[in-house]
Amino acid sequence: MPEFLELLPPPDALKVLLGNIAPVPHVEQIETIDALGRVTAAPVFAPYPLPSFPRSTVDGYAVRSADTFGANDSLPAYLALIGEVPMGAAAGLSLLTGQCALIHTGGMLPQGADAVVMVEFTQSARPAEVEVLRAVAPGENVLKVGEDVAAGQEVIPAGGRLRPAEIGGLMALGLTRVSVASSPRVGLLSSGDEVVPPEMELGPGQVRDVNSYSLGALIQQAGGLPVSYGILPDHSESLRLAAAQALLECDVLIITAGSSASSRDLTSAVIDSLGRPGVLVHGVDVRPGKPTILAVCDGKAVIGLPGNPVSALVIAGLFVIPVLHMLQGIQADRPAPSLSARLTTNLPSQAGREDWVAVRLQDGLQGHLAEPVFGKSNLIFTLVRADGMVRIPPDATGLEAGQTVEVYLS
Amino acid sequence: MPEFLELLPPPDALKVLLGNIAPVPHVEQIETIDALGRVTAAPVFAPYPLPSFPRSTVDGYAVRSADTFGANDSLPAYLALIGEVPMGAAAGLSLLTGQCALIHTGGMLPQGADAVVMVEFTQSARPAEVEVLRAVAPGENVLKVGEDVAAGQEVIPAGGRLRPAEIGGLMALGLTRVSVASSPRVGLLSSGDEVVPPEMELGPGQVRDVNSYSLGALIQQAGGLPVSYGILPDHSESLRLAAAQALLECDVLIITAGSSASSRDLTSAVIDSLGRPGVLVHGVDVRPGKPTILAVCDGKAVIGLPGNPVSALVIAGLFVIPVLHMLQGIQADRPAPSLSARLTTNLPSQAGREDWVAVRLQDGLQGHLAEPVFGKSNLIFTLVRADGMVRIPPDATGLEAGQTVEVYLS
Repeated sequence: MPEFLELLPPPDALKVLLGNIAPVPHVEQIETIDALGRVTAAPVFAPYPLPSFPRSTVDGYAVRSADTFGANDSLPAYLALIGEVPMGAAAGLSLLTGQCALIHTGGMLPQGADAVVMVEFTQSARPAEVEVLRAVAPGENVLKVGEDVAAGQEVIPAGGRLRPAEIGGLMALGLTRVSVASSPRVGLLSSGDEVVPPEMELGPGQVRDVNSYSLGALIQQAGGLPVSYGILPDHSESLRLAAAQALLECDVLIITAGSSASSRDLTSAVIDSLGRPGVLVHGVDVRPGKPTILAVCDGKAVIGLPGNPVSALVIAGLFVIPVLHMLQGIQADRPAPSLSARLTTNLPSQAGREDWVAVRLQDGLQGHLAEPVFGKSNLIFTLVRADGMVRIPPDATGLEAGQTVEVYLS
Repeated sequence: MPEFLELLPPPDALKVLLGNIAPVPHVEQIETIDALGRVTAAPVFAPYPLPSFPRSTVDGYAVRSADTFGANDSLPAYLALIGEVPMGAAAGLSLLTGQCALIHTGGMLPQGADAVVMVEFTQSARPAEVEVLRAVAPGENVLKVGEDVAAGQEVIPAGGRLRPAEIGGLMALGLTRVSVASSPRVGLLSSGDEVVPPEMELGPGQVRDVNSYSLGALIQQAGGLPVSYGILPDHSESLRLAAAQALLECDVLIITAGSSASSRDLTSAVIDSLGRPGVLVHGVDVRPGKPTILAVCDGKAVIGLPGNPVSALVIAGLFVIPVLHMLQGIQADRPAPSLSARLTTNLPSQAGREDWVAVRLQDGLQGHLAEPVFGKSNLIFTLVRADGMVRIPPDATGLEAGQTVEVYLS
């Protein structure tokens, strides 16, 4: 199947791809302590309120607020000190009118108390008596039960990625296990007569497999589980068999073609034979990465990436990562981390096509500078030398030196 | 030891802390395939050049460029086609004057050839003869040996974090193992009479340990290895023994105090007893997190964090992460990922103090909006509801609605 003459812009191509996937949700229960970076499979509700008891937010004296009304430096309220609230236990005290109790930050309010006076606003001239120099309102310096989270409240939506704060929040509620989406299995298959495994000595004309490993790492970062199916020569039947087996065992299949046009054509034909509807997009209006193949075979995404390692990583960022997010059920994904920087040189580009350019960040007098990392080669070390990528939108004929751009960090 | 009266600003406090650490570099050799996110312990040099043979960057015909000089549409150069270059093998051909060979993208240039003519600029009227319609310069459409990387060139500096591109680059060079800094072991100890493990049912006045887990996750993200030493009651001698043992077994020790002032004072005294010089900073001019303790005991960083889970995470971001970067030897760390957004409301702040405010990102008409997540509680779900943090610098008395701020993503 030749490349289509009409190339789709990346966002349209992505819409076609995602629109044809039939995701099968896989769910597993794991320990919360192992759940960093995973995605919730169901909303999480609070089994208890937080805090679960009325807590003091300061060091001072628990009081009945009405007892302090009108108190000031020249006319203090005199309260009888009846004890101290222990940390980590019931107060064990009950305040009557005119009484107070010593309390520490985080301590549980005694019965009868409805506010806490900060120690800074008290003095004590006689034992067992506290002079309150400032009035407190009901509830002042107190966290009410459920003020952070009410019992039954949804605290994490389904499809939420678990960050350090969520891990802590689950533990605060005693939720030591959590239901998460299983990591999608992504099969990786390299084709190309010139490609050999990294551990092999190179013969003349041979290059080492880069894409299985750089893509594997990218897939890990996006929450997927890379599964390598090795390197296959450019023979239709062996590639087809290996691809069918990989697709059976995985949720997504990525085939990176060799660098020659015939290797890419072979890859496309094999992908198209794997299931319905087959190849949906052959060629995307983007540089690098034009010869990208997007397919869905019997509900699963199959993506044919160009053999060039830079193209493969850029295109995987545009298409593989959104597929992995979809399969994990990520809702309302946050924008990709980026930094604003000023371009150091003009970047020409062809109107109508989206371009991605590798840049290196430097410190400028006013914020960051983005210096393009050029290399006609588009080889992998272009990206090693870069901190991130800049997008030149299709409606631009380039970007100008001094212009502010967003650098998407790699 | 009471809190110092003069509070240091966070950058000065960090300088004092890092300046007193005596990092002992631990190095290990690991498989490159497992090295994502790890940090190189030594510079990596290329054992071979890349590419390792002269490669065509296009599909076309390998030629001696001098044979094409002056060629154009009306006056083509006629070359004798002597064969095809196979992929992944030596060319097996040698071009004499007036000869050419079919070559594919990535193919090895034959002996005698010094350029490639794109197939689009050729035609063929007779078998074994190619008409070249455009001249090529020497080296055109060819990647020279070592054009991406020369043999012996430093390709990754010491202290470089390995991203997907670096993993691919190492594999391209056949480097299937790599020397990286060992992950620093970070001991985590919680103190506080009111703190219980997450799996326990809460009694009156008790709260669950949040910090060991939220901090553990943050440490993992920063390349460290969290080691939990449990929860200890506020008794000086048992805390001192546990802390000394943890410090012996780890590269960094973090003690989170309970919420009461006495728990914080106890923590400070214990830390000061662990080694020389002991506590360097007690109290930082930042909100949240003022009661932070920074110490170095016999060369190792010991950090006392406030028990409040929000303070603990904010302060760990300011002090623990830079320590972990230093221990891993990270050079020239890149700026933290952030997004520019416009504030939705005024944020008041006290001049002279650095403030960190949790915000939620929303889509606005012109880019992102940052909406503060308020909560007098400073409890963990404030951070769960937030996408990141905004810094109010010490020289500001607040930020205004509509102002553009950097949101540091959490």
